[in-house]
Amino acid sequence: MSDQARTVDRVRILGRLGEMSRIGALENGGVCRLALSPDETEAKARLIGWAQALGCVAYIDDIGNLFLRLGGADSAEAPVLVGSHLDTQPVGGNFDGVLGVIAALECLEIMARQDERAFMPVEIAVWCNEEGARFNPTTMGSAVHVGHFPLGEALAVTDASGQSVEASLRQSTASLRAAGIGLSHRDLGAGYKAYVELHIEQGPVLENEGVGIGVVTDVQGLVQYRIEVSGVAGHAGAVPMEGRKDALTRARALMAELDAELGAFGGLRFTVGRINVAPGSINTIPAKAEFTLDVRHPDPQVLSQVSRRIEALCAHAQLTRLIYQAPIPFDAGIVSTIEQVAEQYGVSSRRMVSGATHDAAHVAALCPTGMIFVPCRGGISHNENEYCEPDDVVQGAQILAETIMALAGRQAQ
Amino acid sequence: MSDQARTVDRVRILGRLGEMSRIGALENGGVCRLALSPDETEAKARLIGWAQALGCVAYIDDIGNLFLRLGGADSAEAPVLVGSHLDTQPVGGNFDGVLGVIAALECLEIMARQDERAFMPVEIAVWCNEEGARFNPTTMGSAVHVGHFPLGEALAVTDASGQSVEASLRQSTASLRAAGIGLSHRDLGAGYKAYVELHIEQGPVLENEGVGIGVVTDVQGLVQYRIEVSGVAGHAGAVPMEGRKDALTRARALMAELDAELGAFGGLRFTVGRINVAPGSINTIPAKAEFTLDVRHPDPQVLSQVSRRIEALCAHAQLTRLIYQAPIPFDAGIVSTIEQVAEQYGVSSRRMVSGATHDAAHVAALCPTGMIFVPCRGGISHNENEYCEPDDVVQGAQILAETIMALAGRQAQ
Repeated sequence: MSDQARTVDRVRILGRLGEMSRIGALENGGVCRLALSPDETEAKARLIGWAQALGCVAYIDDIGNLFLRLGGADSAEAPVLVGSHLDTQPVGGNFDGVLGVIAALECLEIMARQDERAFMPVEIAVWCNEEGARFNPTTMGSAVHVGHFPLGEALAVTDASGQSVEASLRQSTASLRAAGIGLSHRDLGAGYKAYVELHIEQGPVLENEGVGIGVVTDVQGLVQYRIEVSGVAGHAGAVPMEGRKDALTRARALMAELDAELGAFGGLRFTVGRINVAPGSINTIPAKAEFTLDVRHPDPQVLSQVSRRIEALCAHAQLTRLIYQAPIPFDAGIVSTIEQVAEQYGVSSRRMVSGATHDAAHVAALCPTGMIFVPCRGGISHNENEYCEPDDVVQGAQILAETIMALAGRQAQ
Repeated sequence: MSDQARTVDRVRILGRLGEMSRIGALENGGVCRLALSPDETEAKARLIGWAQALGCVAYIDDIGNLFLRLGGADSAEAPVLVGSHLDTQPVGGNFDGVLGVIAALECLEIMARQDERAFMPVEIAVWCNEEGARFNPTTMGSAVHVGHFPLGEALAVTDASGQSVEASLRQSTASLRAAGIGLSHRDLGAGYKAYVELHIEQGPVLENEGVGIGVVTDVQGLVQYRIEVSGVAGHAGAVPMEGRKDALTRARALMAELDAELGAFGGLRFTVGRINVAPGSINTIPAKAEFTLDVRHPDPQVLSQVSRRIEALCAHAQLTRLIYQAPIPFDAGIVSTIEQVAEQYGVSSRRMVSGATHDAAHVAALCPTGMIFVPCRGGISHNENEYCEPDDVVQGAQILAETIMALAGRQAQ
């Protein structure tokens, strides 16, 4: 096997990313491909066309996850999965999700040229509704596939216009079939050998440190709260400063305490992303202040210790826990495989935790799982300015392909 | 003249306040009488009816201010004015404005029983659109009457439905005339001998100190700003704490600096009544934080010194000055007249500044002006829970009547 045959085709991968960027393109360079929309369905059809040209067979499960299998289509052998998602935020970028899918296709392009007996079956996984932008919650497809979210509940979820996941999925599948695409059925929770996902970092660490790839060891745990602080409204001119019960002043004091206490936990990330006051009039002392708190850490014990501190600090406020997601450690074997591949290619790497959640966090419950991050400019994502350097695209896809070939490689028999 | 003939009629004044509270009544005890609405017009018609029974003549000016003159209708002699307004907030209370008007009517009830040669002409003034809730700005009628706001501009102002002040005023006047009410014309900026207004405090000071009435020495000056602080958005999970440019964190630091600096100015009142962050997503570091700042002080020099400090502190933010209103000192002679009357009646009083603005702040440019505050429960106003004790209503009206009689009394000739 020549080195060239194992090399990612730069023109092809960048060309395909470019083609995808035109499906649902927005005016300022971004893209809108909401889950199960006609545009996302068109992107899937384009992908299936490319994969079928390699001899892949397409499968779909009951929640709309798509699997494109190379090799051993007639065997029950558990495949190695490689993939990501094709849906985007309403004003999304050209790399979040689609990069991992097009890079996965590149893996199959390379493997399709090898002796098929050398590898176990490999499948591209395209998870349905990762973004959760049209249908709540996020990572719906992988959560249902793995059994973390009930299928019936997911199908009943509706978008802002009242259309259900079920109806949208039926339309999307019908239009794929109308285009002559054959789709076999895939059971939920099927067995897999391993899963690896390539994704932009969505943070600034790799870029700032000049590191080629991030080897993801864990997906951080997450706890989110809504915190309401009460006060007493009054006329901004008529009520003296002494004796005011200003809800915003109280909320700011609480935020300062949270800063001081939470800042002491190493590696903790915490964010107030929303704040509102009522009545919200320029000349009225706020009677109520409400803000959200998003807290993340890879260690479940730290996260639960922090949660207890937050709950104690908010004893005089109204605290609502909105979400708790346990931290997810990835497979140690896959982490070292990725590191070895990077070293072999002379690409610098560092271990890191994923701050955002990903489909891989669910899939980790089914099979050994790992993720590879590539740098993105300014750490920006969910934004039309999201950008990944072509060299980083190609390098990331190359590391992914070698990792998949290592995981799917059959021992000499 | 017997003491009884000079005494406010408790049953009558409380009964009339009760009648007014049924015009535009809301479900929870409050009232909605927007400026120039059919309900406000009905309240004016009711008032005119009561005043005409005393022999008053009604005048209206080009912006809809109403004047009800007792005595000397055929003379050009400048009258003493006493009044307030009948319009309310959309969800308003039963005392803000209407108390001052019904108490003014009570003054005329008492004076109508005296020898008319003892007094100069006296007029109830009912200012149009004090609240500014339907038509912006607040205190429109008095501002136009005095020449602080151009008539043409005021008439062209429209409400949320697109109806202009001019059209609403025409309808309101037509329906008064249709009810057989004669309205003479009053020139803008006519000459007056003095103006006194009774109003609820809209703050908690009198109630907290157990003082009977407030003698208003000044209307505070006001400056309002919008302050925008910029940062850089990022994923709440993916961007480490170090190096974050969180716009809300920056805005909070700025607010803390403002607290520290502004808190050092005695008698200053400052309020952040609105705050918003963008994009306002629970898992996104805010890229922008915007808040308002309302600052009041009775001394113009302090207010301008404070403004300079605010502008310096906000050097790295985007600062927009929304409004500046100079402090208005009231007439020293009227202040001491009110104090003497209160002392004579054994009613405790204290000097105070008005935190809110009032029509009196404009009228002070035309003639010697003063205001009397009565306590209101919890300092609450612009609210259905606005409440003034019957004893305070009667006592306030009595002090007002004696003040007006003192100001309008003719020297023994």
